Amino acid sequence: MIRLDTELVGKMEEAFTSLVEKEMTMPPIMRVDVPDHNGEVDIKSAYIKGEDSFAVKLSSGFFNNPAIGLPSANGLMILINSRTGEPLAVLADEGRLTDLRTAAAGAVAAKYGSRDNSRIAGILGSGSQARLQLQALMLVRPIEQVFVYGRNDEKAFNFKQVMEQKTGLHLTVCDSVEQVVGKSDLVVTTTPSKEPLIYGDWVRPGLHITAMGSDAEHKQELDATVMGKADVIVCDVKDQSARLGELRSSPEQQERAIELGEVTSGKHSFRQSDEEITICDLTGTGVQDTAIARHVYHRLLAWEGVKDERREV
Amino acid sequence: MIRLDTELVGKMEEAFTSLVEKEMTMPPIMRVDVPDHNGEVDIKSAYIKGEDSFAVKLSSGFFNNPAIGLPSANGLMILINSRTGEPLAVLADEGRLTDLRTAAAGAVAAKYGSRDNSRIAGILGSGSQARLQLQALMLVRPIEQVFVYGRNDEKAFNFKQVMEQKTGLHLTVCDSVEQVVGKSDLVVTTTPSKEPLIYGDWVRPGLHITAMGSDAEHKQELDATVMGKADVIVCDVKDQSARLGELRSSPEQQERAIELGEVTSGKHSFRQSDEEITICDLTGTGVQDTAIARHVYHRLLAWEGVKDERREV
Repeated sequence: MIRLDTELVGKMEEAFTSLVEKEMTMPPIMRVDVPDHNGEVDIKSAYIKGEDSFAVKLSSGFFNNPAIGLPSANGLMILINSRTGEPLAVLADEGRLTDLRTAAAGAVAAKYGSRDNSRIAGILGSGSQARLQLQALMLVRPIEQVFVYGRNDEKAFNFKQVMEQKTGLHLTVCDSVEQVVGKSDLVVTTTPSKEPLIYGDWVRPGLHITAMGSDAEHKQELDATVMGKADVIVCDVKDQSARLGELRSSPEQQERAIELGEVTSGKHSFRQSDEEITICDLTGTGVQDTAIARHVYHRLLAWEGVKDERREV
Repeated sequence: MIRLDTELVGKMEEAFTSLVEKEMTMPPIMRVDVPDHNGEVDIKSAYIKGEDSFAVKLSSGFFNNPAIGLPSANGLMILINSRTGEPLAVLADEGRLTDLRTAAAGAVAAKYGSRDNSRIAGILGSGSQARLQLQALMLVRPIEQVFVYGRNDEKAFNFKQVMEQKTGLHLTVCDSVEQVVGKSDLVVTTTPSKEPLIYGDWVRPGLHITAMGSDAEHKQELDATVMGKADVIVCDVKDQSARLGELRSSPEQQERAIELGEVTSGKHSFRQSDEEITICDLTGTGVQDTAIARHVYHRLLAWEGVKDERREV
């Protein structure tokens, strides 16, 4: 019922614009650690003033799960009536909506950051988010060829097989990150890496990188030398990127970094020439969760032919 | 299915004991403000190491609701598998479980703080929590008579009528807080007051007060003179009481205050003689939510005859 499509990408653009243009309540992420089971639950929320509903999202990562055949990620969203506090819906999506809104944000980043004529995509990582990010790029750029690198060879070749089937594109599995970066017009990093994957020496003029893997204090995908070489650095939320994202390891870049909402709202430009090197760091925001939960809810109402009879107060 | 009974009171005792005896994760309360509709959503959670599930609770207060015939409070709880992060249950209780666990904590406070032979209860406030607190007291003390004060006369008389029917006790509506305090062996304050209701001059030896109204920076029920006169001050969580409860207005008492879990675990005594004046300040904790959510879930499993087939990992 809900898909990664241009409508969803449009909803994410609006969400990022809201972040800089509208009054909103977006408290810091609440984290419940479950250390003895190598797990954590993150709770995010954002209320945009004037909107008739908002979401509270639980997303969990339990990293012993794969060993027993379960995905590490799970979660659900609760949509709340902004006027009365009544729960409108519990979306038991098992984290699928988080995956979709994250991928859609990748499309927004590529739309503003990469060259219009980007035809060659590089993907680091070969998990479910890697698949979605490639599909997201295809919504905004004329992708023809894909280079992929994953630490696990078997998973990387499986990614190639599945995505060739799904997209009709030709995919090449590379031996190194450097190869992927050297061949691509735009690169998306989707790994849980704790050390830099991309170094400044490998980066040619015109490249765009979207780094969406790092969302915690111990993660990093981009070396400080890449950050230093970038002409423009954009992130979803500056404070959060400085705490959990790529800006954390490159504090000297924090001042010049701008927010994606400043780009989508037209306040700042992102890429200004084909030669610039551009980076977008995404850590994930509650306002994206509210946007996708509202989108799903309205689709559900339409789907069921339910007239939205919410109390007019 | 779930009632205010001695079993639930026992669960709350265990929860408070866990707070001081067990390793746990209990992050600070997350608050989402919805200022244009005079509302807020609070999110609480606590994971006790070793327990196979824990709760995340949303509770909302939307204070324009009564004007349109809706209760201001609402909420739900999500019980999560501690091993895998999978949601086990969504308890759409509309805040009822919060009411029950709050009342049960009142019983714990009275059990340790009030005189064994307390027969006369004083209740400040006449809302749903006032009703529950009276029922909670009756579980732990031989209550025979009740004095009540509420700002709204009509509501106070309604309280008298309903509770006389429900309990078989004789209730008297008083003209002032001072009257209630002067006549009672133990007093429970259940109001959203922003100014002190009880002053030190009114307090006789032997009195116990449980203050459960204040749970926010702008609320207060006890004047600093009462706090000063108390021989023992107990609170659920010291940091939280100092931020949101009665300790906030009496910072000079913070050092000597002890936590309810130190009492239930036997580390500290509460009341030691019939002459002491004792106070217990309750602000509400995530560990109580986890305790009641687990209690309900296990009852549900038993109720449905469902054998608990959770994966043994």
